[in-house]
Amino acid sequence: MARTSEGAAGARPTIRDIARVAGVSKASVSYALNDLPGVSEETRARVRATATELGWRPSAAARSLSRARAGAVGLAVARDVRLLEEEPYYMRFIAGMEGVLAREGVSLLLSVVPDVDAAVEVLRDWWGERRVDGVVLTDLRVEDPRVALVAELGIPCAVRPGVDDRLPGGERPGVPVEAERRSFVEVVDHLVGLGHRRLARVAGPREFLHTRRRDVAWAEVTRSRLGREAPVVVADHTSAGGLAATRDLLARAGPPTAVVYDNDVMAAAVVAERESLGVRVPEDLAVVAGEDSMLCRLASPAISCLHRDVVADGAQSARSLLEVVLGRRSEAVVFEPHRLVVRGTTSTG
Amino acid sequence: MARTSEGAAGARPTIRDIARVAGVSKASVSYALNDLPGVSEETRARVRATATELGWRPSAAARSLSRARAGAVGLAVARDVRLLEEEPYYMRFIAGMEGVLAREGVSLLLSVVPDVDAAVEVLRDWWGERRVDGVVLTDLRVEDPRVALVAELGIPCAVRPGVDDRLPGGERPGVPVEAERRSFVEVVDHLVGLGHRRLARVAGPREFLHTRRRDVAWAEVTRSRLGREAPVVVADHTSAGGLAATRDLLARAGPPTAVVYDNDVMAAAVVAERESLGVRVPEDLAVVAGEDSMLCRLASPAISCLHRDVVADGAQSARSLLEVVLGRRSEAVVFEPHRLVVRGTTSTG
Repeated sequence: MARTSEGAAGARPTIRDIARVAGVSKASVSYALNDLPGVSEETRARVRATATELGWRPSAAARSLSRARAGAVGLAVARDVRLLEEEPYYMRFIAGMEGVLAREGVSLLLSVVPDVDAAVEVLRDWWGERRVDGVVLTDLRVEDPRVALVAELGIPCAVRPGVDDRLPGGERPGVPVEAERRSFVEVVDHLVGLGHRRLARVAGPREFLHTRRRDVAWAEVTRSRLGREAPVVVADHTSAGGLAATRDLLARAGPPTAVVYDNDVMAAAVVAERESLGVRVPEDLAVVAGEDSMLCRLASPAISCLHRDVVADGAQSARSLLEVVLGRRSEAVVFEPHRLVVRGTTSTG
Repeated sequence: MARTSEGAAGARPTIRDIARVAGVSKASVSYALNDLPGVSEETRARVRATATELGWRPSAAARSLSRARAGAVGLAVARDVRLLEEEPYYMRFIAGMEGVLAREGVSLLLSVVPDVDAAVEVLRDWWGERRVDGVVLTDLRVEDPRVALVAELGIPCAVRPGVDDRLPGGERPGVPVEAERRSFVEVVDHLVGLGHRRLARVAGPREFLHTRRRDVAWAEVTRSRLGREAPVVVADHTSAGGLAATRDLLARAGPPTAVVYDNDVMAAAVVAERESLGVRVPEDLAVVAGEDSMLCRLASPAISCLHRDVVADGAQSARSLLEVVLGRRSEAVVFEPHRLVVRGTTSTG
């Protein structure tokens, strides 16, 4: 069986084959197929025609290019490993990355570490030992030592597009806050339109930049729409944390009639446990989730949410990183605010 | 910030520190702390006492041991990348692996490839380029070229414990079928006890060994309990596939009143879409899922299932592999049949 697969791999045209047939060097083939400068347009066209003729697939060239490199990119997730058991975010992000990396024959080096200091150690080791050609950073913290590290060592780097892109050289810090603001305007207007006046938000931990950005946006939007800042309770993104925060809110004088959650796990836990919380959804409590993973669609009632295309975010991060690594020009990332998807937890229709 | 974290890393006691204080060689410290032969019990005890005294953490030693090695283990998932977007299995398995690997300072090299032939190419590259010290194989196929590859190249290897452990040298092929049989006996007896006579199963693709083992067990158990083999429809583990298979079953003459699904995604999709399928759950259709991820607990009604501890499976796989890599003696894996968890989709209580 191994022999069959080896045979199939052997039959695949290589850069060497293309170079021989096109009458150019292997380096020229690499340059031409990877859109790098260093060959004339005429050569580029001839190489491409030959490649097509021979049935060459991009992955083969990417792999032969990558042999000179680590052929891997790194993702060090700085979160409690127990969170990963229930949080769909990371697998969706990784699935998006893999969709791009697999086509290029690039592997993903993954490590789950408890905090950013441990992540710094991992990234330093990976880079020092030439195990990765670059890294993707997610969940940027307010003071994040990873940012200093990649700058200090010059590690090619991509961040979650449109959200965490505040690295040195990747300015536009205003865009994500503005997008969060527009997202919350959609949510708050929707809830106010349904008659809600007492809103609240269950946020993720304040160490995250994305939490802070949403804090700013939430305060502004609720102040302007409701005349006062609606309350925020911090939780840890887990189902247990989301439930505890919601119990806290419901026990207050003048409890909220609508709660917006920073992720899906917390919102889905509240919908599933509505009876033990003593509320009907949406009659007593409207619920809005933060991501639109399958948890929202599979819940009953299905959960209204801010739709974020996490798979596309992962793909875009991988693509951006490979562009930096391969010296290609980077496409501009178009940032879209999260779109509100209305389902059963905010409407009885 | 990077300086602070570097300082913290520098303050951590190393194997060299322990060796100096305990008055032994660095090699002896490695042997002692990694439970390897080569040092006396007295030395082992002294080294451990010194390590504790200095506040040494296991990861530091494991890392210094791992510097001589690749310091990474590989997981090449041979599944459609789109499946990963909704299937909680892999993230739970990876979370379990990371819980063990992180403590040992070992990284995970991950690749998602469309089929086992592509996985063979990836594993061959990883091993040839010394990027991994060993690999974990999941989802073994009926004819699986990865098994021949790891045997041919002598790659240290672990398989999903108790389920896929049919590698050369890892015999006990009868155990998993027997466990599936006992699991299905629990499920079928539960459903028959509730009055169901028309059962069906929505299976995963037949290329998987685990599907085949369940096919054998399902046929035997339903024949012995119901007097005839209950029908099986094959689907692809996705929500769309699970819905289509269920529609097929419900359109038959004498449609099933209870369906057992090989994974959670398919079962959760059916519970969420029960209205469009034209059934009440559990009154018209009882539903049993196959894994017990959070999809089962968050559904309404919550979904009865065969409970599999996927996180523990991932941890056990990583532990077994590291034992092989580090030359430690492997613990015996105790195989437990999946336990039936009864929830709202099979009882109106």
